[in-house]
Amino acid sequence: MASDNIGSVGTTALAFFVAVGSRDENPSEWGMAHLLEHLVFKGAGRRDFRAIARQMDRLGADINAFTTRDYTCFHAKVLDSEALDAYHLVRDLVLQPWLAAEDLEREKGVVVEEMNESLDDPDEVLDTLITEALYQDSHYTHDILGTPESLANIEAEGLKAFYHRWYRPENMVLAVSGGARELILKAAEQDFSGVGGVSELPRRRPRPTLAYLQREQAEDWEQAKIALGVEAPGRYQDEYWRALMLSSILGGQNSSRLWQRLREEEGLVYSVGTQYAADYDFGDMITYLSLTPEKIPQALRALFDEVSRLAEVGPDTEEVSHTRVYLNTVLVMNQETPDARVMRLGRYALDGKEAPQIDQAVRALSEITPEMVKADAQTWIPGSRMAAVAAGPVHSGALNHAMFQGRQA
Amino acid sequence: MASDNIGSVGTTALAFFVAVGSRDENPSEWGMAHLLEHLVFKGAGRRDFRAIARQMDRLGADINAFTTRDYTCFHAKVLDSEALDAYHLVRDLVLQPWLAAEDLEREKGVVVEEMNESLDDPDEVLDTLITEALYQDSHYTHDILGTPESLANIEAEGLKAFYHRWYRPENMVLAVSGGARELILKAAEQDFSGVGGVSELPRRRPRPTLAYLQREQAEDWEQAKIALGVEAPGRYQDEYWRALMLSSILGGQNSSRLWQRLREEEGLVYSVGTQYAADYDFGDMITYLSLTPEKIPQALRALFDEVSRLAEVGPDTEEVSHTRVYLNTVLVMNQETPDARVMRLGRYALDGKEAPQIDQAVRALSEITPEMVKADAQTWIPGSRMAAVAAGPVHSGALNHAMFQGRQA
Repeated sequence: MASDNIGSVGTTALAFFVAVGSRDENPSEWGMAHLLEHLVFKGAGRRDFRAIARQMDRLGADINAFTTRDYTCFHAKVLDSEALDAYHLVRDLVLQPWLAAEDLEREKGVVVEEMNESLDDPDEVLDTLITEALYQDSHYTHDILGTPESLANIEAEGLKAFYHRWYRPENMVLAVSGGARELILKAAEQDFSGVGGVSELPRRRPRPTLAYLQREQAEDWEQAKIALGVEAPGRYQDEYWRALMLSSILGGQNSSRLWQRLREEEGLVYSVGTQYAADYDFGDMITYLSLTPEKIPQALRALFDEVSRLAEVGPDTEEVSHTRVYLNTVLVMNQETPDARVMRLGRYALDGKEAPQIDQAVRALSEITPEMVKADAQTWIPGSRMAAVAAGPVHSGALNHAMFQGRQA
Repeated sequence: MASDNIGSVGTTALAFFVAVGSRDENPSEWGMAHLLEHLVFKGAGRRDFRAIARQMDRLGADINAFTTRDYTCFHAKVLDSEALDAYHLVRDLVLQPWLAAEDLEREKGVVVEEMNESLDDPDEVLDTLITEALYQDSHYTHDILGTPESLANIEAEGLKAFYHRWYRPENMVLAVSGGARELILKAAEQDFSGVGGVSELPRRRPRPTLAYLQREQAEDWEQAKIALGVEAPGRYQDEYWRALMLSSILGGQNSSRLWQRLREEEGLVYSVGTQYAADYDFGDMITYLSLTPEKIPQALRALFDEVSRLAEVGPDTEEVSHTRVYLNTVLVMNQETPDARVMRLGRYALDGKEAPQIDQAVRALSEITPEMVKADAQTWIPGSRMAAVAAGPVHSGALNHAMFQGRQA
């Protein structure tokens, strides 16, 4: 036996969320939000790219950034003793980037390679496919990386204008959690004292239009990948917690209907899982399958059979209460580390909201009945309001046939 | 601004390490250690697969297992209040699995799909290639998953014999960290009171023989992937900390030589990184590159140029002391969560050792001089004692030519 009694090592996490993502880009700007996120690391404030890299290493190298459709996030997790230095570094990256023309050209080349990397990743290929099949609004669906053409046309002047339009303190959230929280909040209050009360958040974008397409894409892979997508509630709609419950019962936990039936009982898939993603006022629920291509018809038949049973009979009380315990526990455990907490804090603050407390979540989940899950499962009955894509060694029409078979089940 | 002052949510991690991995398999047993790891979740003690899945969910679903060449690990992270239940579940999985014949047949099918999944993952393809190019000992290099043929020949009786040979308490480590540590240690002391003092750990296997091959493998990918591998010290050799320092300076941190030169200055690669892996009495250091195939010759020339500079001039004092701070900080931050701590505890305990304290690491790192790094960098001068593989849209001989060019640089 081996054990330790180490207490907290004392870490602090902080993140700047800038309320700009690929959804805010016009076609001539495709890829700009993501390219900016890369470029700020090439020089900011008094540091060139070498000094930035050295400072990141000195602080433990848990400092990075990412771009989504909705926002751009620059985050750091460090020892409490280094938290103020980390704050100063990330603040400078966000507020004082150089955006030099020669760095821009080199970084465009890096992003083109990033595009190629994602073409070699089956899961990313499938994500692109299902997004384009579920939505028909290119403001929403275009690749966060942009296209080789849109990138080629980006010039330093246009990128700087884009930066100044979006990277204003009024359009940002700073989220902090951990031992050095007070220290950082105090420093930030001084740095940002001029912007008190003029926040432009939350921002509202038009909801993307749904498409519900069906697509097959031949790829030279061993395994086939399938994704099925339906509409789901937004993050602040009453039905949010119901959707979380449905996605868990359907395909979100070890004891989920789809995992137990398709993988454990019938061995039809390598993996199957349902993911619920919610934006401000809309969301989607997507079921992903990875399997041997020959088993597609059988697997989809079993899937739609489970869906029908859930929509016709519903779960029993025990299944709902079990899933409630699962969700409550996951919600608590997701708050373990300060870096997980700042992600949650920042995401809600961008919407002008506070992240729900655990007891609010527990209460909301306790109000969900088996009848509600049964009613919500109707969305998964195959019909016109479902997007479906397949990629890998699949022949054209394979999905169509299987979906049709499923509808007969 | 958004912040919280949440303290610890109170989690405990525990893991059973069984000292059996794919290296312990004879050719007729290839894949058994990994297959066993899957099978125990199909029924153990008084729980069938459904009850196991439900209990995992109830505990928050952060319970899993994995198999390496050296050991098999079953691990759980849970809220302190659930730790005893988690211990009982994992204990039963390890000590009382059913290993039913019908589960075995179904699970063989799952593992065949797992093989296909890994063939679709460029990084896994490259890992297999570099392992087979660096070592020539099939006890060490054979796929942890086995082969389709070896799997097909595994029968319940043979698998049970394999289980009883290796899954004995004397051949296991239980590692625990977190709030419920005392509680679990007390329970485990009762459960395992019969095995006190008869530990068979540490186990010693023969070192694998090195091969230093060079291989190109054509794959229908957009990007090319390259790996270069050299021998490195074992975990308990004096040179361990020197190797950690060298790998960080060469390609392990943001400010590393290879990242700065190949990616940041010259834009020749999408990514480049050096990883040092150490076993009991041997280890290896591997540099991975991902890049546009056309840039292979240029990138390898720049790589070997950097290596030569490091081996001829060495780093300056500032570079070494900077890297020391980076490594110290990473070592402390890696102890933040109980699940990270049990991995470290267990890995050392399998070798009959205690994980080094931070102050030991700090002292060892403080003794490394620029001269030592310069001397150690000699291993990276291209020559016969280096394995090299390339996969992707590469033509046969591309690597050979580039390596030769590199040697001229």
